[in-house]
Amino acid sequence: MPLPHAVNIVEVGPRDGLQNEPGNIDTNVKLELIGRLVDAGLRQVEATAFVSPRWVPQMADHTQVMAGLPNRPGVRFPVLTPNLKGFENAVAAGAREVAVFAAASEAFSRKNINCSIAESLERFEPVLAQAQEQGILVRGYLSCTLGCPYEGDIAPEAVARVARRLYDMGCCQISLGDTVGTGTPLKAQRMVETVAEQVPLADLAAHFHDTYGQALANLFAVLKLGISTVDCSVGGLGGCPYARGASGNVATEEVVYMLHGMGVETGVDLRALVDTAHWIHRQLDRPMQSRVARAMGE
Amino acid sequence: MPLPHAVNIVEVGPRDGLQNEPGNIDTNVKLELIGRLVDAGLRQVEATAFVSPRWVPQMADHTQVMAGLPNRPGVRFPVLTPNLKGFENAVAAGAREVAVFAAASEAFSRKNINCSIAESLERFEPVLAQAQEQGILVRGYLSCTLGCPYEGDIAPEAVARVARRLYDMGCCQISLGDTVGTGTPLKAQRMVETVAEQVPLADLAAHFHDTYGQALANLFAVLKLGISTVDCSVGGLGGCPYARGASGNVATEEVVYMLHGMGVETGVDLRALVDTAHWIHRQLDRPMQSRVARAMGE
Repeated sequence: MPLPHAVNIVEVGPRDGLQNEPGNIDTNVKLELIGRLVDAGLRQVEATAFVSPRWVPQMADHTQVMAGLPNRPGVRFPVLTPNLKGFENAVAAGAREVAVFAAASEAFSRKNINCSIAESLERFEPVLAQAQEQGILVRGYLSCTLGCPYEGDIAPEAVARVARRLYDMGCCQISLGDTVGTGTPLKAQRMVETVAEQVPLADLAAHFHDTYGQALANLFAVLKLGISTVDCSVGGLGGCPYARGASGNVATEEVVYMLHGMGVETGVDLRALVDTAHWIHRQLDRPMQSRVARAMGE
Repeated sequence: MPLPHAVNIVEVGPRDGLQNEPGNIDTNVKLELIGRLVDAGLRQVEATAFVSPRWVPQMADHTQVMAGLPNRPGVRFPVLTPNLKGFENAVAAGAREVAVFAAASEAFSRKNINCSIAESLERFEPVLAQAQEQGILVRGYLSCTLGCPYEGDIAPEAVARVARRLYDMGCCQISLGDTVGTGTPLKAQRMVETVAEQVPLADLAAHFHDTYGQALANLFAVLKLGISTVDCSVGGLGGCPYARGASGNVATEEVVYMLHGMGVETGVDLRALVDTAHWIHRQLDRPMQSRVARAMGE
């Protein structure tokens, strides 16, 4: 199968990338980051999360972030909402698109969000009902699709089951996360093939982590199956440079470099994106891990 | 096409990886590195280079390295020999396998080895003749197969032409190098397909650099064509961690991780290999760039 002509990049740096950063990041820095990403051509930028500041203090300024977002036609700013309260706050703050998250691994669900997979889905039901009523789009994140830190291998059928439930509940897109980054290309292929029997390929996204350096190989494998939406994080924000078990989001510019090299359009200006990666790393005083950003320099 | 059942890993760390390291590395460190790699299951380890110490001072101890190599049945220790003098010295020091290097780019050949492609091939003729007479195997490295720092794109047909010449001259294997690391998977596929019209696939190797993070994706693409020999460097030795235009060898443990994850055998003990990566990085006091080595820890 030929590669897709164009790929939608979902930039998750401002939320998924920054949420675990230590130290307070000024709201203006977050807004400048988002503005630079939009200027670089990104059309879907996950802006913040409406979660309790007790759990994710870095996202406590979600209302201010929403108030300061650039107003650009065609640019979407999804936000993470774990429950109905978060959803209501997000919508009150102006969100037109939200995301919920579930796990394909029972053990991970219990450890990460403190409830079973079934309970997490129940919790999303009122969110999805409200969203439908108000014309709000909902993405469904699904974690541990290629492995779990507690359970190890996860059967593709288990992933497909939860993906189908999220889709049937009204999620417009299911983002398949390789949370621990242990996936390899053939596993990624098999998982996507199995999920695609339950959810149309056009409504699936790949959200692969680069913790073991496998993300681009895995992406290439699933792009060939027809996946045409990819989540990534500018500069690889979200991975801890040296710690074991780092989260390791794949760097947007490494994905864009590969796609452009294969003639796949993204609408992104790679040079502007790399400049943004260097800029945010300077703001955070953090060593650059992205190979493309290092190779292309400042 | 299914992936190969097993892949031959050619470990180039002790030569390609160390040759540009600043500061003197003790010969005993090099020999311990080689010993650890062999203990980890590597069966082809490029040990040193018989080049002038004026050009590559780090390899000035080639004779001592050869004298100290472990004697293990089935383990091969190729060495780099740029000309007949290097070849004779290598054989006198005990080498049973050597490597020569040419470029697919005329401009790179002139800047890197100071002669045209045709002149470089002429220089190898006596090496290959002598080697054949003495039953010495010769690998042919071919650089710039996916791009050149001076010429940019390189036509796959130009790569195939030089590869065929090296093969016809008697090289037993042609190692296709992405020297600048700018290749992406479809380019890598097209290049290997074109070269394979001139040289049997079984006698080709992929030597891809990870400067732009593309190496594993490129490898996955060409493994699917039937490539079954891969060059790589423990811990990614040979790339400069922060400098622009770093050489960026792909890390052996990242390749092995991907292959094992796909059920492809390598004979390598991944844990022992990662331990070796950490050990040599401690010796060199160099930050670890390999994601697998970082994620698996010490």
